[in-house]
Amino acid sequence: MAAITGHTRLYAILGDPILQVRTPELFNALMAGRGADAVMVPMHVPAPMLASAVGVLRGVANLGGFIATVPHKSAMLGLCDAASDRARAVGAANAFRRTPDGRIEGEMLDGVGFVRGLQREGVEPEGREVFLAGAGGAAKAIAFALAEAGVRALRIWNRTPDKALEIAERLRRAGHGLPVTVATSDPSGCDLVVNATSLGLRADDALPLGAERLTPGQIVAEVIMKPSVTPLLAAAQARGCRICPGAPMLDCQIELMADFMGAPR
Amino acid sequence: MAAITGHTRLYAILGDPILQVRTPELFNALMAGRGADAVMVPMHVPAPMLASAVGVLRGVANLGGFIATVPHKSAMLGLCDAASDRARAVGAANAFRRTPDGRIEGEMLDGVGFVRGLQREGVEPEGREVFLAGAGGAAKAIAFALAEAGVRALRIWNRTPDKALEIAERLRRAGHGLPVTVATSDPSGCDLVVNATSLGLRADDALPLGAERLTPGQIVAEVIMKPSVTPLLAAAQARGCRICPGAPMLDCQIELMADFMGAPR
Repeated sequence: MAAITGHTRLYAILGDPILQVRTPELFNALMAGRGADAVMVPMHVPAPMLASAVGVLRGVANLGGFIATVPHKSAMLGLCDAASDRARAVGAANAFRRTPDGRIEGEMLDGVGFVRGLQREGVEPEGREVFLAGAGGAAKAIAFALAEAGVRALRIWNRTPDKALEIAERLRRAGHGLPVTVATSDPSGCDLVVNATSLGLRADDALPLGAERLTPGQIVAEVIMKPSVTPLLAAAQARGCRICPGAPMLDCQIELMADFMGAPR
Repeated sequence: MAAITGHTRLYAILGDPILQVRTPELFNALMAGRGADAVMVPMHVPAPMLASAVGVLRGVANLGGFIATVPHKSAMLGLCDAASDRARAVGAANAFRRTPDGRIEGEMLDGVGFVRGLQREGVEPEGREVFLAGAGGAAKAIAFALAEAGVRALRIWNRTPDKALEIAERLRRAGHGLPVTVATSDPSGCDLVVNATSLGLRADDALPLGAERLTPGQIVAEVIMKPSVTPLLAAAQARGCRICPGAPMLDCQIELMADFMGAPR
């Protein structure tokens, strides 16, 4: 990347922990590719500090925006000065831009980036019946983005059904009319199968869904970025399914984030 | 420079305005030369935000430290958790390190960097009689660093004599026994002549001291970095003096700053 000077536009990612983040590397590579004078740095901000950190970032005049990651995405919704309808419906936001007058505006791009990544791989969710494993923050964002993309129906599997029901209720309240069911771990009959849990991050994790019921013709997509081929994806591949690893989804989200934050083009 | 990841150690420079700062470029080049995973970014922080910004930086766990520039150097002395004897004596600090438990410790390296720069050019201030033009923040820091370096006597010229007298009084209170006089703009008889005013930044500035009285054998040093050869240095050169431009002084200060902030070696 080019030298950082007093003219360089500043971006940050706030999280706790911070070591795992890949966004600065991808964002800075995108800016370097554009020949743009902008840099993103990691900021390890613990949860009790978040509100005052946002207060300060409001006043940092050369700041273009910032990204919030675990555990700040829900809390940020209450700390920003404006949020998109989507962010409010999901109940969380991850991308924030700073307006010239020091307002912080939030958007939720987690799910949208995931769906955009699928589309770039040639997988169009519109009209499909989708099986979604998980009902945490990532699952919620993906559920909304899938609904926006026009999926025919959504089947959610989560060990705690209440959280899956909450997603269904949030979708309904946001005016998405698609049928949402809370079901078992069996993905049979769905066109598109998505893991939005963290199961697969560690080698000894259980599979996030009933992979033994997968059949050829199903597409299995993953939110986990490392390992690239999770045990779920390996099982899916062995059963003749097409697989979509998680890493390209983040690459895709970077451009959405940069555009939302008004990063130089 | 290398890619910024979640592991990259974070440094910042706080100022208002910020466009003019050269420290990030020099610091990042130093880190790149060392193969160190650290980055310094500019943060445009207006004065009313400084206290809350410092409060937040205390809690940013991956922050190694920061530099304060105009107009924050004096105010920072009251905002950090500890300051060196030198910083307290000068009444300002410009380099800050963050301890693992979130304390901010301040040091004043402006003058020390200037003197170290002179020494690197082969100019040893010890035992010399010095003429110092200016009595602002830079002049004050340089006066202390020259006293520490063992100059024989200091003659200060400033349009407002009260500020020059204040430096003399601060030096006395800090236990520096050298004779300090507040004098006219005539540098006659001094071995080393230093401009610590901002006169010379703009093409139509008046000369900061009576350059027509300079004689061969005198050394004339400058704090101004741009232009490299100021009208004062040009006049000094024309009168047969050795000259020391300002830019190498900042280069020299960067290493002192990096070491104080505990930047990777």
